[in-house]
Amino acid sequence: MTDIAMIEAAAARLKGHARRTPLLSSPFLDEIAGRRVFIKPEALQHTGSFKFRGGWSAVSALDPEARARGVFAFSSGNHAQGVAYAAKLHGVPAVILMPADAPALKIANTRALGAEVITYDRATEDRDALGQSIAEERGLTLIKPFDNPYVIAGQGTVGLEIAEQAAEEGVEKADVLVCCGGGGLTSGIALALEARAPGLRARPVEPEGFDDVARSLATGQIERNHHLTGSVCDAIITPQPGALTFPIMHRLCGPGVVVPDRDCLRAMAAAFTRLKLVLEPGGAIALAAALFHPETVQGEAVIAVASGGNVDAGAYAKMLEAFGEGA
Amino acid sequence: MTDIAMIEAAAARLKGHARRTPLLSSPFLDEIAGRRVFIKPEALQHTGSFKFRGGWSAVSALDPEARARGVFAFSSGNHAQGVAYAAKLHGVPAVILMPADAPALKIANTRALGAEVITYDRATEDRDALGQSIAEERGLTLIKPFDNPYVIAGQGTVGLEIAEQAAEEGVEKADVLVCCGGGGLTSGIALALEARAPGLRARPVEPEGFDDVARSLATGQIERNHHLTGSVCDAIITPQPGALTFPIMHRLCGPGVVVPDRDCLRAMAAAFTRLKLVLEPGGAIALAAALFHPETVQGEAVIAVASGGNVDAGAYAKMLEAFGEGA
Repeated sequence: MTDIAMIEAAAARLKGHARRTPLLSSPFLDEIAGRRVFIKPEALQHTGSFKFRGGWSAVSALDPEARARGVFAFSSGNHAQGVAYAAKLHGVPAVILMPADAPALKIANTRALGAEVITYDRATEDRDALGQSIAEERGLTLIKPFDNPYVIAGQGTVGLEIAEQAAEEGVEKADVLVCCGGGGLTSGIALALEARAPGLRARPVEPEGFDDVARSLATGQIERNHHLTGSVCDAIITPQPGALTFPIMHRLCGPGVVVPDRDCLRAMAAAFTRLKLVLEPGGAIALAAALFHPETVQGEAVIAVASGGNVDAGAYAKMLEAFGEGA
Repeated sequence: MTDIAMIEAAAARLKGHARRTPLLSSPFLDEIAGRRVFIKPEALQHTGSFKFRGGWSAVSALDPEARARGVFAFSSGNHAQGVAYAAKLHGVPAVILMPADAPALKIANTRALGAEVITYDRATEDRDALGQSIAEERGLTLIKPFDNPYVIAGQGTVGLEIAEQAAEEGVEKADVLVCCGGGGLTSGIALALEARAPGLRARPVEPEGFDDVARSLATGQIERNHHLTGSVCDAIITPQPGALTFPIMHRLCGPGVVVPDRDCLRAMAAAFTRLKLVLEPGGAIALAAALFHPETVQGEAVIAVASGGNVDAGAYAKMLEAFGEGA
């Protein structure tokens, strides 16, 4: 099970390879939110999302034999790129299973990062079963997107950095809002904060209609989403919280926050205008909660993880046309 | 005159106030350029450009009496915001003279940062004369955008950081491409590199048709631009290199690089797709030189300063529609 020692060990393996992202802020965002807002821009991480951290952590933990055989991942995009690039830098072959309707940019990038990409239909095929069978057939090590202790430890390094950077800013007590799919990032951050900044509390943020984690936290047991497509935040939608991540989130996280799609687009526009940061919708959802749902947050400051920026140019231009001028 | 001691002193005053921007990179950009490319993203600086550094440096160097009277600046936008915000954080009144045709966002931001904004017509009015008279009338301290030793020292702190960060990346010999208007950033960086990373050479980058610095470096004397509008890089166009900045650039810089507007837009698209970084055209011109004019650069690596990201949403959406999908 992932603990603070594993997160520290992952941080040591990531040192000099993952980027230490800065903590950003803007007086204009503070004014919208009515409190100080700090943004941890993991869109600036290698491959455009925090997923590189988990990928590097998992690949770097493999023994030489497993490295020689290669790794396998299934992902709607960001995890794919993170694993592919981490594997490439380690000289490890990577096979990635991606939904056929993932953004073209994400599929192209994953291939360009040296991985073999296999696509599947997410309406009719079971990605977990398919993934398991491909991995076994080829002797590949499966790196699950969130339910893997090394992946959780890698994502937890975001939390170590937040703990240090919040202290530098004089923030001792605050909610840390985290874009949440399966809970790898949220649970990793929660573990790091528990050990290094106990006044900071991780809170998962999810799209309206896809609030499996918020409901699971409320009932105390794993709840499922009723459907898996239909949000602009597709990248962070999973069927249910992970078997490894949920117990951690249940023990450590504050209540989940739920945000409508429209506010994610507005937060993308605000990040464009005020932070010069490109965010994808799912990557902007924690910032959306901080800016547009301040009543759900506690404390004089709030920290929002901006988890990814892999968005097609056309979709981004449309967002700017709809929301850019008011931001 | 600005020297390394003044730059170090500015760095001490800026510590904890200016953001230490990271050094970004992408394997996709390396491939376009044919060498390693590092980007120093000053668009992530407070107010969206490096100008906050010079503004803070100059305001923080004032004596209490001058602070009480206030400061004055003339600027097409980024210097205005940098000075306005630095003044606000020091509790110093600021008056800013801006061209009436500056981007609406820049004028609005400068006002929102607490400054009094006065506009002028850049086709018919002489901004220097007008500025001088307003400053004298009100007893304000004029902070020139580049020909001010404290401003040059503040911009030079970018060079100190580049020297450290390049060493961390193992880069000892490289061209450092710098978006260049009047030369404050270029000359400050050149001074810092001379002292702290003598294998790195600053080179100014300018828009085609507005290459006063490149021509001045070639002839060894100050040359003027023939006109002052008509480039997408308006923000970095000045009549001629500064009286203080030119001798520094002439002594230390490699030859100037000149880039057509179209390549600046392509570099903006590349920064969007590969770095998740919003750049304005003038802020992307050094990256454009690195990516699309690699034959003008020497060495196995190149460092490009991405100086600012203050661009209107509408203009950015148009850029993405034209160049986004290919980047």
